Amino acid sequence: MATYKAPLDDMRFVLNDVFEADKLWASMPATAEVTRDLADAILEEAGKMVEGVLLPLNRQGDEQGCTWNDGVVTTPEGFKDAYNTYREMGWTALSGNPAFGGQGMPKSLAVLFEEMIHATNTSFALYPLLSNGATLCLDAHATQEMKETYLPKMYSGEWAGTMCLTEPHCGTDLGIMRTKAVPNDDGSYNITGTKIFITGGEHDLTDNIIHLVLAKLPDAPAGSKGISLFLVPKFLLDDNQNPGERNGVQCGSIEHKMGIKGSATCVMNFDDARGWMVGEPNQGLAAMFTMMNYERISIGLQGVGLGDVSYQSAVEYAKDRLQGRAASGVQNASGPADPIIHHGDVRRMLLTMRALNEGARALAAYVGLQLDTAKFSEDAAARSAAEDRVALLTPVAKAFFSDRGLETCIIGQQVFGGHGYVREWGMEQFVRDARIAQIYEGTNGIQALDLAGRKVARNGGKSVQAFLADARGWVDANEGNAGIADVLPALRDALQLLDDLTADLLNNAGSDADAISASACEYLDVFGYVIYAWLWARMMATASDCTDYPHRDAKLLTGRFYFQRLLPKAHALAAQMRAGSEVMMAMDEAAF
Amino acid sequence: MATYKAPLDDMRFVLNDVFEADKLWASMPATAEVTRDLADAILEEAGKMVEGVLLPLNRQGDEQGCTWNDGVVTTPEGFKDAYNTYREMGWTALSGNPAFGGQGMPKSLAVLFEEMIHATNTSFALYPLLSNGATLCLDAHATQEMKETYLPKMYSGEWAGTMCLTEPHCGTDLGIMRTKAVPNDDGSYNITGTKIFITGGEHDLTDNIIHLVLAKLPDAPAGSKGISLFLVPKFLLDDNQNPGERNGVQCGSIEHKMGIKGSATCVMNFDDARGWMVGEPNQGLAAMFTMMNYERISIGLQGVGLGDVSYQSAVEYAKDRLQGRAASGVQNASGPADPIIHHGDVRRMLLTMRALNEGARALAAYVGLQLDTAKFSEDAAARSAAEDRVALLTPVAKAFFSDRGLETCIIGQQVFGGHGYVREWGMEQFVRDARIAQIYEGTNGIQALDLAGRKVARNGGKSVQAFLADARGWVDANEGNAGIADVLPALRDALQLLDDLTADLLNNAGSDADAISASACEYLDVFGYVIYAWLWARMMATASDCTDYPHRDAKLLTGRFYFQRLLPKAHALAAQMRAGSEVMMAMDEAAF
Repeated sequence: MATYKAPLDDMRFVLNDVFEADKLWASMPATAEVTRDLADAILEEAGKMVEGVLLPLNRQGDEQGCTWNDGVVTTPEGFKDAYNTYREMGWTALSGNPAFGGQGMPKSLAVLFEEMIHATNTSFALYPLLSNGATLCLDAHATQEMKETYLPKMYSGEWAGTMCLTEPHCGTDLGIMRTKAVPNDDGSYNITGTKIFITGGEHDLTDNIIHLVLAKLPDAPAGSKGISLFLVPKFLLDDNQNPGERNGVQCGSIEHKMGIKGSATCVMNFDDARGWMVGEPNQGLAAMFTMMNYERISIGLQGVGLGDVSYQSAVEYAKDRLQGRAASGVQNASGPADPIIHHGDVRRMLLTMRALNEGARALAAYVGLQLDTAKFSEDAAARSAAEDRVALLTPVAKAFFSDRGLETCIIGQQVFGGHGYVREWGMEQFVRDARIAQIYEGTNGIQALDLAGRKVARNGGKSVQAFLADARGWVDANEGNAGIADVLPALRDALQLLDDLTADLLNNAGSDADAISASACEYLDVFGYVIYAWLWARMMATASDCTDYPHRDAKLLTGRFYFQRLLPKAHALAAQMRAGSEVMMAMDEAAF
Repeated sequence: MATYKAPLDDMRFVLNDVFEADKLWASMPATAEVTRDLADAILEEAGKMVEGVLLPLNRQGDEQGCTWNDGVVTTPEGFKDAYNTYREMGWTALSGNPAFGGQGMPKSLAVLFEEMIHATNTSFALYPLLSNGATLCLDAHATQEMKETYLPKMYSGEWAGTMCLTEPHCGTDLGIMRTKAVPNDDGSYNITGTKIFITGGEHDLTDNIIHLVLAKLPDAPAGSKGISLFLVPKFLLDDNQNPGERNGVQCGSIEHKMGIKGSATCVMNFDDARGWMVGEPNQGLAAMFTMMNYERISIGLQGVGLGDVSYQSAVEYAKDRLQGRAASGVQNASGPADPIIHHGDVRRMLLTMRALNEGARALAAYVGLQLDTAKFSEDAAARSAAEDRVALLTPVAKAFFSDRGLETCIIGQQVFGGHGYVREWGMEQFVRDARIAQIYEGTNGIQALDLAGRKVARNGGKSVQAFLADARGWVDANEGNAGIADVLPALRDALQLLDDLTADLLNNAGSDADAISASACEYLDVFGYVIYAWLWARMMATASDCTDYPHRDAKLLTGRFYFQRLLPKAHALAAQMRAGSEVMMAMDEAAF
């Protein structure tokens, strides 16, 4: 059965000890009220909520799934009550703009909360997370009147939000979308078209659903430069700003999926639905993408959260399950066999999971702090540097978190042996739920192209060099730290490897049109392993200094495990990447 | 939607051109009648059958699953008719002993058939495959009278068979099992106990089910040396050897699983069920394990077959799906976008799948030929060498096939983007179905321990050395082959790496009790990548010589891709393995 306690100690260690987040928060007016005590208290309350409200609904949400009946979507039993509790406790408002009723908590805190909700009930988590994305977009691009009308109700959770991008014939390539927006005389538009894979497109949790829809104006330029963004409420607002007349948008069906079955994934049919433009004409894609960095981190965290609940459950099982005797001698003489946690192969699995989860948590907090700096800092140079770092690391975090998340959930399932394959134990649900995070919010292949193409090749590797300078500066400053002396050489090598591969990428991109697409995936993975190495070294350095930290030994051992057992993968990936594009592009299409 | 054509060309290339299987068959009396024409005809008929009978039932079998009602298990709609067709066509008898009505086809041919049935309907395939396992065991250990009574009906498919090993508290560690066998005066035994995870323990496909059950005699020694094997029919036979009185064995429930939902995974309750001992008292585990090499290859092939149907489906989708423009220039000027098969990242995915599938097919045929030699050769030295090779490679094939099979199915799902996550497209079922092959028939962790411990350390690496001598001999003999000159150095390096790691393993095993368990998994993976490299070089050498082979270029390019993009992983695994056991064993149990 699933075991989960919010990993508060490790979260506080990362936030408070490794990154001293409170110092950054205190330095910026928008976050000055967020003290260490407040952050700790929020995490503690969040832990109680997810353990008590979300986790108990997770299995049954998977078994029941959502149901569709003539356009009406019903969420699994208990979801509506849990949602009401969740929003009444204020969690829907956590990181919203205080000017419109949000609580203004920084992303560096929100990432830890998001990890928890994904760990305990990913299907449930997606409803408020998609609304978050919609509010971020409105807050950045809507008119003051729109914000006043919609944001307070969305922060309170009375209304939900969606993001409607994909169509049956286009997902990655939105430039070829067909949904049309025809202007009306009153400044509104009539939206017509079909959107698919719309998370929370229809459900029974809220009184209204505010769709953010990408569509094309009649005279729009071709391709992605001709896409505009529209706000389309499920219920049009009456004169008192309450949900009134039903708008021309209907849920045509819901998808039957591998996992996240409690999350309604909807086909949405817009038939002359009334909408209002958000932002400028033909600038819709850019507007939608302003919150993508936030959302992509949140989706990456699905992999981290599920990886952690899988780890915790696997540890519990491995301590309980008796099978065979430890190679080094009997551990449980009074029992018929030893707990399997004493077998090397089981430890390899558990430590792999743990090293990946804790590395991911550190990276999420790091990127969160960069997002906070980019948004709230009063220092323009700091903002700009942070924006650059966020742009560079967001695709890494989204793809590496979700790829390693699936890997971690598969390992956790393996620890359970045959029981891992049986639904009632819950381990296989984590695998199924985690799988989608590699696909949606931009497939991981697209994340890799974004990294290698837009974030590296197009700026001549400047962002990577800035990152490497910071990491190398940290290494230099910690050269004398005896607690990490054994891993620093490997970290230096890893940073050099990333440097070399970046140079290769830039070189090859000039002469070979396929160079980026043929090596982007490996490049992203190398980046992931290298940045985890740096963050692991930072965690080890901090733990080494915190002699009273109760998990000090575990942190140091897990870090060593990371360097010995996981970082070497970066070198194989480098060899793969160096093979270039020639062979893979040479195969004739018909020969596949 | 799933696309599958039996890969007859590649199967014939491997069997006829690479391995010249017909020469081996002709050299042994038991297989002398198996000509190349006969083998080709069997594969062709098999292809028609799996495409026409099994594939159409695969999706609905997953959606409906099996149902249990008061001990009666009903298979999905269409399974019973398909089973009747299957057995009437003689497929249940394919590799059975001709002395009792089997067709006596060699395993080297059967592996290709098994790949096909797994590809098209793994859930269905498991029913005849488990019966196969039971007949292999009976053929090796039962009395003549038992064989005459049971084998003809099992080969004809009128009766099915099971293997009952696992109990709720023990799977890997069968020594602690509790099922009891109490002798009766008439030479029979009364069997009492509960077995779980019994594939095909109860179903509606056959008139009788013959359970092979491991249990302990009242005076049995403790542990795995006190286990005996019993034949327990669902219906006791009447005087005419027809199913008569119901025996004391009932299906208590079926498992609700992640996948293989059309396969009934049963809890079997034996309550003074009458059984008859097979083989000698307390020798049951050894008897059951005589057919393990055959069965483990068959289960590994689940990964290969599913990997291939996933590949074929992904290729079809990648040729059809239009999204974005190729980096090297427009490929489909008249359409709104290019087929995604022109993107480097999609080719990376497809070629990875293909290189793993074809490498696996070659290894399956290679091990099949060794199994045939071990069973049928009249040359004692050849038999002994083949037995040794089979013992060494079976754990590699089972684990590496199924691990890479899951990986391949996940990649194929990724090619479909969001549609890969939706059930109706079928790609996610392949992932769910493939997952179990890493767990059952001995988890892949157990396969790795079997390899590193029993097959390598316990014989001082002699079996590995014999393998390396053969592979190096082949490399020496092919030194001048211009068609593979570019990959031979990497193959030599790979063989040396395996040699070095084997020496490390033997060294460390002497001084560190945990050395094997802490590195077995990586060692097995290295072995897999290295032996695929050898087999890929062999396929490339053969293709290079077959100038009229229509898939010659594709074979050579895919081989190069394997060496460039997949073999490098072996070197990272080596670094991981060399880290040893110290860090992973140092963590206190409570600290996890």
